[in-house]
Order: sequence, then structure tokens, then C-alpha cells
Amino acid sequence: MSSEKQIIGFIGTGVMGKSMAAHLLKANHPVNVWTRTAGKAEPLLQEGAKWMDSIAVLAQQSDVVISIVGFPKDVEEIYLGEHGVIRNAKPGTLLIDMTTSSPALAKKIAEAAAEKSLHALDAPVSGGDKGAREATLSIMVGGDKGIFEKALPVLQIMGKNIVYQGSSGSGQHTKMANQIAGACNMIGVCEAMAYAKSSGLDPYTALKSIESGASGSWTMSNLATKMLDGDFEPGFYVKHFIKDMNIAIESSESMELETPGLKLVRSLYQKLADKGFEDDGTHALFKLWDS
Amino acid sequence: MSSEKQIIGFIGTGVMGKSMAAHLLKANHPVNVWTRTAGKAEPLLQEGAKWMDSIAVLAQQSDVVISIVGFPKDVEEIYLGEHGVIRNAKPGTLLIDMTTSSPALAKKIAEAAAEKSLHALDAPVSGGDKGAREATLSIMVGGDKGIFEKALPVLQIMGKNIVYQGSSGSGQHTKMANQIAGACNMIGVCEAMAYAKSSGLDPYTALKSIESGASGSWTMSNLATKMLDGDFEPGFYVKHFIKDMNIAIESSESMELETPGLKLVRSLYQKLADKGFEDDGTHALFKLWDS
Repeated sequence: MSSEKQIIGFIGTGVMGKSMAAHLLKANHPVNVWTRTAGKAEPLLQEGAKWMDSIAVLAQQSDVVISIVGFPKDVEEIYLGEHGVIRNAKPGTLLIDMTTSSPALAKKIAEAAAEKSLHALDAPVSGGDKGAREATLSIMVGGDKGIFEKALPVLQIMGKNIVYQGSSGSGQHTKMANQIAGACNMIGVCEAMAYAKSSGLDPYTALKSIESGASGSWTMSNLATKMLDGDFEPGFYVKHFIKDMNIAIESSESMELETPGLKLVRSLYQKLADKGFEDDGTHALFKLWDS
Repeated sequence: MSSEKQIIGFIGTGVMGKSMAAHLLKANHPVNVWTRTAGKAEPLLQEGAKWMDSIAVLAQQSDVVISIVGFPKDVEEIYLGEHGVIRNAKPGTLLIDMTTSSPALAKKIAEAAAEKSLHALDAPVSGGDKGAREATLSIMVGGDKGIFEKALPVLQIMGKNIVYQGSSGSGQHTKMANQIAGACNMIGVCEAMAYAKSSGLDPYTALKSIESGASGSWTMSNLATKMLDGDFEPGFYVKHFIKDMNIAIESSESMELETPGLKLVRSLYQKLADKGFEDDGTHALFKLWDS
């Protein structure tokens, strides 16, 4: 076994990516970075990361490419575009997309990668900016099992609950299941808190009765008080949640699966975005009841 | 202070009530019982409880009356009926209804009680049969604060997280907020698990990624595996959950509060009951996706 550290090309140094790339640097991996808004990479460059002038150059000079960006169309361009990763990476390069993106796109990328002797995994995460900062992300992985095992040491630098979910797209499917549950939990907390307020209860006191019981959830424990306080700082953006729900609905429809809860919550978030709140945190859904 | 224990009249010895009354006996309170199906009181009588031939006799012979029964109409008859508690109890008797029931009815009972110099609290619980057995129920209490403080030693025998929520009806309102959140969590877990199965994931493995993260909930941790196993034994009955959601919807409408999530979930449970599953556990909602 070589003790030489793999060179990692990191694409997307936003709220999540900046912390994840910093952990890789701290673990002594050489890190090449590219991100759409170059200024966002600055703190990483000061910690020793190397700026790449394009995705193509990054792909050529890295053993492992990791991406975590905004939308599926970004992922598609990064991997499948004319100047993208797949056309430029060396054979044998490991590609890990950690964006929450479409399961169908993940399969397409994996197939295109395989044709060029590249190995692709879909590995979306959950745990938010806090999980990224503390390297405690939950990482759900789809792709070839042998490739997953090769990627594991790198993934372990960024996360804790790292689970192999099956063939390509399975990581994204797992994340969709996660987002569906989370979406419904959110409407439940909003309606429960709105009910508490409307009925004349002190909603903070109501929370003391509810939070630790059978109706409790991570959403309630972490976001209900922020809703009531009117603190809508984003841990996770409304606009990104809508993107995730749209992928989940599209994917459900392709499987002829009915998701009335998910569809209802998506429609309410769309209303929220139409009112101009797409850059708020997801718990701003409460504004539909309390404004 | 007298060390003589108050005589407790206990009405309703079903799944919850039987354990709660047993704790009172173990704490050396004399316990008088009445329940609709007399056979259900048998184990308590063997432990020393005294059978009462009617609600009226029970009310006459008790210092504290506690009830936990099925539906608001039962509660109404027990307290306000011609042969009910309020017409028969001695002045100063403490009345504690622990049924999940209507906030409006709780207020009505409290007013009728006050006219007869009786003291009524609404004190619904959460925590299910397990919480009742282990005396760890969450108890949400509405009524006069001084009366709450007098009732506290008795409530502490049956529960742990005991919170005063405000004037009469506030306990029931808190329980409604609790049920609203729980209803939405349930649809989220159903749709997430249905998605996981439809997309070809192993849903148990998907749970490993999801459960401990930001989409986690008590419902997911405690009921998702039962759904997947096809084990629909009731911890909490579908028919009682529908009753609770109907109260919550009626109460919301009287406050002109919109609850689209709650209404959606109620409609799905109604569908489930119409198929004949009203005596299943609430997680049987999954049958709408997986049958």
C-alpha cells in the first residue's frame, strides 16, 4: 500500500463544500479547487488548496474528483459537458458527486464514466452546514460496491454515517426518501405551532409537552423555536429544498408512485418562493401561517 | 398535612387506564373503578381496587375522579350526563379527564364543575401503552393553576413530563398540536418508505442512512421497521387517531386556521378505515401504498 495521498479535485466550495474540502486538506490530501464564484475558494487557497482555471484542468490533475453544487443542470454540465470531467479525467479517476441531484442523472453519469474507464459514485449527504463543519455528515452512496470500498477512506474524512445503498442512483434515491420524510415533518411542525398560537397557548410551553414524545422529530427539536422566534436564517435554503422535492416528484411519477404529502408540501413551498422567500431557511414555511 | 391518601375513582380501564390505575394502587391510593366492560377491571380488582356499580356511586365515594375513555361523547356522558360525575360528586372533588377529547368540551365540563364547587382539569397524555406501563407519560394540563398544583402529586404517579399549559381546554389544545405534528410525520414516513421500496432500494438499509439525520422522527425510529415487516399490531388505534384528527380539524376551523397537511392525512386515514383497518395500529397507513 502506498502512503502517498490521492490528489483530490474539489468542485463547489459553497456552504457545504468549503468545510468538506477543508477537512480533506487537514487530512493531508493535496486539494485542487474550482468553483463558479472564484472568491468563495479564497479561504481554502490560503489553507493550501490549489486553484484550477477550469473543470477540465482540475479533472486532468486529480485522482479523485468530488463535486457538491446547486442543481442537477450544474452536475450535468460539470460531468457530461464538452469541457467537463468525463472528457478530461485520466482513466481510473474516481468521480464522486455529492450534490443532491437526480437518480436518473446519476445513472447516466456512471454509464458515461464507465465508457471512459472512470468510476463514478453518487454520494449525497445529509446533516447540513453543521454536519459539514463537524465532519459528521450522513453519506448515502450508490455505485459499484468495490468502488465504494475504495472511496471509503476519503468519505470518512467528511462524514460519519456512511452507508452503501446499492447500484448507481441508489444514493440519490435514498436522499429523495430522506427529503420526502423531512418535507412532511416540516408541514407538521408548522401546523402544530400555528395551531398552538391560534388556540391561545404559549407555543414554547406547548413544545415542552410535545417535543420529547411520539410526535417529536429532528425538525421540531431544531427548527420550531426558530420559527416562533422569527429567525429564518438559512441552514438549508428554500430554493434548494424545492429543487429536491421537484426531483423526488419527477422520480416518483416515473415509478407511478403516489406522493400526496410530498406534492402538498412542494406546492406550499412554491407559494413561499413566489412571495420572495426562496433564500430563507426551509423553516420559513411557517411564514404562510404566521405573517 | 394529612398522610391519608386520597380515594381515587378511576373510569376507563382500557389499554392505557389499566396501567395508570395500577400505578395509583401501587402508590397506596384506595382506587374505586368503573368501566364499561366490567371484565376489563378484573385484574385491578385482584390488586385491591374496589368495583363501583355506577358512575354516580363512584363519584360519591371518591376524592379525585380520573377518566380515560374512548370518545368525546363518552366523556360528555360521564361528566355531564344525568347519572354522571358532576351531579353526584361531593363538593371539592377533583375531576381529571385524561381522554384525548375536545377542547370546547373540556371548557364546558370545567364550567359545569365550578357551578357545583368541583374542580376540573383536562389532562390528556402522550406516550402510548408503553408510557402508561412505565409511568413515563407526558401529561398536558389545562385548568386553574392552583388546582393543577394540588393534582400534581397524583399525576406524578402516572407520568413524567407534566406541564401546565393554561386555562381549561389548554391541555386538549396542546394534545391537538401534538396529534397534528404526529399525523404529518406518519405520512412522511409512509411516503419515504414507499419511495425507497419502489425505487429498488433495500428500505431497511435506506433507514440506516435516514433515521438518525435531519429527517428523523420518533415515528420513523419506532414505526418504520414495523411497517416494512408488515406488523400492524396497534400501539395506538387507527379509529382513535381519526377521532383525534376530527377534533383537531373542527377546532382549527372554529379558529379559521388552515391545516392542509392535517386534512390530507385525515382523508387518507378515512380511506384506510373504509377498507376495514380501523383496529390496526396507526402505522397501518402504509397499507395504502404497500398492499
